[in-house]
Amino acid sequence: MAIDYKKELETAAKTMILVHKPDTLIKMIVRMIIEKVKVSHAGILLYNKEKNSYILTVSRGPVGLRIPAGFARMDMHNPLIRFFKERKNKLIFNNDCLVYDKGKKFLKRIEDSDLKQLLLQSLYQMEIFGVVACIPSYYGDENLLGILLLGKKKDGATFGSDELNFFIAIAQDVAMAIRNAQLFSELELELEKKRSLFYHTTIALAAAIDAKDHYTHGHTQRVTDVSLEIAKKLGEKNKKEFNEQFLEDLHIASLLHDIGKIGIPEAILNKQGPLNPEERKKINEHTNIGVTILQPIRELQNIILGVKYHHERYDGLGYPDGLKGEEIPLIASIISVADAFDAMTSERSYHLPKSKEEAVEEIKRQSGRQFDPQIAAAFIKLFREGKI
Amino acid sequence: MAIDYKKELETAAKTMILVHKPDTLIKMIVRMIIEKVKVSHAGILLYNKEKNSYILTVSRGPVGLRIPAGFARMDMHNPLIRFFKERKNKLIFNNDCLVYDKGKKFLKRIEDSDLKQLLLQSLYQMEIFGVVACIPSYYGDENLLGILLLGKKKDGATFGSDELNFFIAIAQDVAMAIRNAQLFSELELELEKKRSLFYHTTIALAAAIDAKDHYTHGHTQRVTDVSLEIAKKLGEKNKKEFNEQFLEDLHIASLLHDIGKIGIPEAILNKQGPLNPEERKKINEHTNIGVTILQPIRELQNIILGVKYHHERYDGLGYPDGLKGEEIPLIASIISVADAFDAMTSERSYHLPKSKEEAVEEIKRQSGRQFDPQIAAAFIKLFREGKI
Repeated sequence: MAIDYKKELETAAKTMILVHKPDTLIKMIVRMIIEKVKVSHAGILLYNKEKNSYILTVSRGPVGLRIPAGFARMDMHNPLIRFFKERKNKLIFNNDCLVYDKGKKFLKRIEDSDLKQLLLQSLYQMEIFGVVACIPSYYGDENLLGILLLGKKKDGATFGSDELNFFIAIAQDVAMAIRNAQLFSELELELEKKRSLFYHTTIALAAAIDAKDHYTHGHTQRVTDVSLEIAKKLGEKNKKEFNEQFLEDLHIASLLHDIGKIGIPEAILNKQGPLNPEERKKINEHTNIGVTILQPIRELQNIILGVKYHHERYDGLGYPDGLKGEEIPLIASIISVADAFDAMTSERSYHLPKSKEEAVEEIKRQSGRQFDPQIAAAFIKLFREGKI
Repeated sequence: MAIDYKKELETAAKTMILVHKPDTLIKMIVRMIIEKVKVSHAGILLYNKEKNSYILTVSRGPVGLRIPAGFARMDMHNPLIRFFKERKNKLIFNNDCLVYDKGKKFLKRIEDSDLKQLLLQSLYQMEIFGVVACIPSYYGDENLLGILLLGKKKDGATFGSDELNFFIAIAQDVAMAIRNAQLFSELELELEKKRSLFYHTTIALAAAIDAKDHYTHGHTQRVTDVSLEIAKKLGEKNKKEFNEQFLEDLHIASLLHDIGKIGIPEAILNKQGPLNPEERKKINEHTNIGVTILQPIRELQNIILGVKYHHERYDGLGYPDGLKGEEIPLIASIISVADAFDAMTSERSYHLPKSKEEAVEEIKRQSGRQFDPQIAAAFIKLFREGKI
């Protein structure tokens, strides 16, 4: 046998553990084997927990698929699966592989009729698949993780026993790598679930707070959408500042920007007609109330800046601290534009909704006064592109 | 050399990738090497990203620590680190190991004075450590992940070149396994952060809603604490039903049980004196309002049962659906007891607080009427144990 591909396969098998998507990993392995070992085709039958079956996950080769589609899924009663699950090969050969020719020869010598039947059926399946050798992978001693199916070698030679031993070793690496990738996937899924739970709960609670203020139905979601659009627009020219982390922070900050309204009396929130100065002052407290609510949450420190300062103005005439120009955190300046736009285009007790065009004109006019010019500019661009 | 330990080490190296705690993994490896290879001591210098240094992570052996504590951390200027980072060993020997005796011999032949100086200092460090061979691990071609330090073999023999080649191969497995474990740890940390963010945000928002109702300051947190205690008590006899998942669901459900109060007018929530039937009816809507708020959140379906039914009664006289006995989900029955206990022992507009003893008596009296008997019993046990 050619020894030269062994080193390559070994190295590849070792780096495999850093591929954490099971599907990618399996495709890699099969492609590698076909290329390096020069077999006509190869496939992997892999255990699928949900279906409690073995699925033909990949099957490829230059001569095309040889494995009929109807055989792509095998349950626990399938002879080939039973043969390896029950480790019958140990009874017959002194390694883990089932080689078609050897199996065929061995058939005559078997006295146990059940075993004979099982081997016969397994060999028949191999015939259907055009497979000359099956190499199982176990996780621990008990669990059959999968079976590597190998077609004929292109040069017509049969697999030698050293070659088969080498495949058994590789199959063990592969089993570990697949198991590892599965664990990784499970953890990533868990992470995705938690992320989704956090967002959905925050969205639901923000919507409930919106609902308290009769005039702002859907306000939070709209502000969030526009804020994220603005940040993506700014990110086209400055990927470093407006990165994934910034977008995530902005997303949460937009959802929570009015959270402090929960501390404002309903009588003021829902008052018909314009507010008197005292009521206005009371409403303006919602930014600081928001800070008080979120302050204890260590993970939200960047986000609080957006909640606290989204009513600051570029000219320094805003609240709560009268910050000016670049002193205002970007996250807050973005929410400020999105918030003002939604307030202008929605009905309020004290005004009818403006058209989008009128509101954009107003934002243009307020650029450098109420709004940070770079953010107002990004917003206007978005409007022109029809994205708002 | 004894070939017998190789197989064992190889197998161990392969299973290592399923150990996902880097510290455990490294300890395993060093212990394994000391036992199998029979060296006096061994250690691993491992790259630490935060400190941008190499840290002596473990160092052990039957003859005790030979490595002075002051040398436990090496930065990028350290000669031994530089020697391997710059892959100087490639210039000198045709493999990756630095063996003390060979290095010493080679010194005389080096003409480049910088390299000579670097090798001299590296060898000096090996002397201090009592180390006869250093085996580096790289991740990719560039990144020095760590260095395995080996003391003398106990039988006095020197390491043969086949033995060193074997260590290089193992070191590669180890490097991969450590890298994999680090990735796992990072993902787990991320998951823990998300979990914590979710809990803290939910706690903060629940507290803000508590604050709307002047009479219930701290109510949510106390109900949550008592609910979890009850579930743990029940779990002592029935681990399967009151498992981690149940505790997590109950935790969230308790935090959110009164979330629907956000939809009740402040005038009713904060009314002085007893409520009239219409106001009572309005307040009772908070369970269904809670459901409406949380319904869209797929991940919260089990939790919603706690929010919806925490005012049902065992005798079927509760609200919103008049469920009876075992029809009431356990998660709701637990919150019901904790909620009633906190209401009784807190001041309300219409009553002074009861003492704990009086409240427990009342819960005993209501067992089988208002409360599920098994949960009332668990609560009473907790009280007797001084846990409430």
